Amino acid sequence: MLGNGVIGILAESVNKWERRAPLTPAHCARLLHGGDANGVARIIVQPSTRRIHHDAMYEEVGCQISEDLSQCGLVVGIKQPKLEMILPDRAYAFFSHTHKAQKENMPLLDKVLAERVTLYDYELIVKPETGKRKLAFGNYAGRAGLVDFLHGLGQRYLSLGYSTPFLSLGASYMYSSLAAAKAAVISVGEEIASLGLPSGICPLVFIFTGSGNAIVSQGAQEIFRLLPHTFVEPSKLPELFSLAKDAPSSMKTTKRIFKVYGCVVTPQDMVQHIDSSKPFDKADYYAHPEHYKPIFHERIAPYASVIVNCMYWEKRFHRLLSTQQLQDLMRKQCPLVGIADITCDINGSLEFVNQTTTIDSPFFRYRVILYY
Amino acid sequence: MLGNGVIGILAESVNKWERRAPLTPAHCARLLHGGDANGVARIIVQPSTRRIHHDAMYEEVGCQISEDLSQCGLVVGIKQPKLEMILPDRAYAFFSHTHKAQKENMPLLDKVLAERVTLYDYELIVKPETGKRKLAFGNYAGRAGLVDFLHGLGQRYLSLGYSTPFLSLGASYMYSSLAAAKAAVISVGEEIASLGLPSGICPLVFIFTGSGNAIVSQGAQEIFRLLPHTFVEPSKLPELFSLAKDAPSSMKTTKRIFKVYGCVVTPQDMVQHIDSSKPFDKADYYAHPEHYKPIFHERIAPYASVIVNCMYWEKRFHRLLSTQQLQDLMRKQCPLVGIADITCDINGSLEFVNQTTTIDSPFFRYRVILYY
Repeated sequence: MLGNGVIGILAESVNKWERRAPLTPAHCARLLHGGDANGVARIIVQPSTRRIHHDAMYEEVGCQISEDLSQCGLVVGIKQPKLEMILPDRAYAFFSHTHKAQKENMPLLDKVLAERVTLYDYELIVKPETGKRKLAFGNYAGRAGLVDFLHGLGQRYLSLGYSTPFLSLGASYMYSSLAAAKAAVISVGEEIASLGLPSGICPLVFIFTGSGNAIVSQGAQEIFRLLPHTFVEPSKLPELFSLAKDAPSSMKTTKRIFKVYGCVVTPQDMVQHIDSSKPFDKADYYAHPEHYKPIFHERIAPYASVIVNCMYWEKRFHRLLSTQQLQDLMRKQCPLVGIADITCDINGSLEFVNQTTTIDSPFFRYRVILYY
Repeated sequence: MLGNGVIGILAESVNKWERRAPLTPAHCARLLHGGDANGVARIIVQPSTRRIHHDAMYEEVGCQISEDLSQCGLVVGIKQPKLEMILPDRAYAFFSHTHKAQKENMPLLDKVLAERVTLYDYELIVKPETGKRKLAFGNYAGRAGLVDFLHGLGQRYLSLGYSTPFLSLGASYMYSSLAAAKAAVISVGEEIASLGLPSGICPLVFIFTGSGNAIVSQGAQEIFRLLPHTFVEPSKLPELFSLAKDAPSSMKTTKRIFKVYGCVVTPQDMVQHIDSSKPFDKADYYAHPEHYKPIFHERIAPYASVIVNCMYWEKRFHRLLSTQQLQDLMRKQCPLVGIADITCDINGSLEFVNQTTTIDSPFFRYRVILYY
């Protein structure tokens, strides 16, 4: 069966929100009629009323619609199929979440082995030249993550008594294209530029972690830059706040602020050498994190309204914020109202992130216990 | 103090979503500078970061911003103020919800009486010629209600396994103008017209109650008409369904439907005379509802995907649907997936509507108990 030129596309079954497809109708048209000698003779698509691309769109480009994928040598999906969909001696491609021996997916791996199936896991496909993943957590995660976060930020500020233009933004799933989502953010930005934000929540500072090659952070910043904004250097944050404080108090009631602030931080804003005479050296920090101490909670976090966390982290590094540091910040009444943790590392660089969220329930409040 | 030419505008305090204002900055500009001899000398606005119209916008047109409204002869709000805001011997205008002696608002009425306050309740202001309310549940309720409902309909269909264009629509509060909300509905309509709806949920029929002068229903229909649609007569509903059934079954997998159906029902679709030889007579039904029996559950409801309820109802009339009738419909697997009860009469024309909803939690599922 392997390599018989017949591809199957699975109906996704993991959760109701999985509306994506591994191959779009346009991809299928290219594979079937693109003129390349790619060896694809037929594509069979399992019917689904949940997939963004409708069955009729696949049929129009020459795919067959059928529940039965038994003629397919290669079966592709986004997430893992139901066990009964694993047919013997075929090839499958999907995110299997098995290569770290994740306990919940061992029955799937057992089934794959028992059926002598060849499994291509998207997470493990790398570019031979660089060894880097071809399908990774990318800038779409950053874009969708920031749109979702801004939607929640509007609700959070309303709960705190502030009506803001962020309330007009929907969740990312409501936009049928990236362009539509960006247009909505631009419209929020226009309202900030023309009518302003209440001075009580300003300067509204977004801190972005994940610099350099962190494409997730770049996606989030791409959305942020659609708002009227100024990027400031980490070292200028205290100045930004003292300027705001010096504004004549007579204007305070009705003063409006017409932009937001962004600040991208790098490892040297997070840690410094224990020997304060030594300058920050990235290679040395990666080799000897134990020679460094955390400074983010003192130098950066006290000025953050929002932290957009997109950084790579391993246990041997210092955390971005520990639970204790967060409690200290809250006790000092820092302006932090929300965190967009796009990394979603449970108990990771943000120690207090203790759960994942879902599209149906995209936010949770972390109740900081304050001991006075 | 009464009639001293100084108006106060309250900061709303009933709930976090109350972002409306009784007078907009544009209204204030007309009152202060319109050139009419309207007797308004000053307007004092309580500061609010929650109001859609910002303090600065009131200040720009010449209002004063102050917590202190003690100089005002007339104080206006949307909802009831905090009791301590009721100052003696002044006039107030707001929705007081006291004229039916609503128990929860009796402390407010006591305070009004104790302070010798003149209370104008918007609900009781009528046009002298007609006796009709000048500020009533209007077409904005119908428009916002249907936008909110369509937003929920997308989520409900997704839970049932169908991805639909309704998922792209936000809640009405997300749109900063009626025009913006309509544009979003039009965009959903364009997707229905170009890519269609899954045939498994079609024909998708919206039943509207509240005909004649029911301006709420007209508002809801105004939004509905932005979708590609056909209105059908109540008597044609069975035909619509038999046509759909007769479609060749080979097409069923991928068939898409490119519009929705609307049907406006009137009292004669809800009840008929017990003596079936007698034609429906509206005046007679209003005088003698006991001579009539309900028929909506047999003639109309079995064909409804959605019921948009905007009808006036009193206890002496038959209900639109009783709990028992709903259970019977569900047992027969009727296509009903959702009800937009814009009347929100608890235990009213829809017997099973047993709770109100909020902007934060706008939907509830009524679990029908089926006895076989």
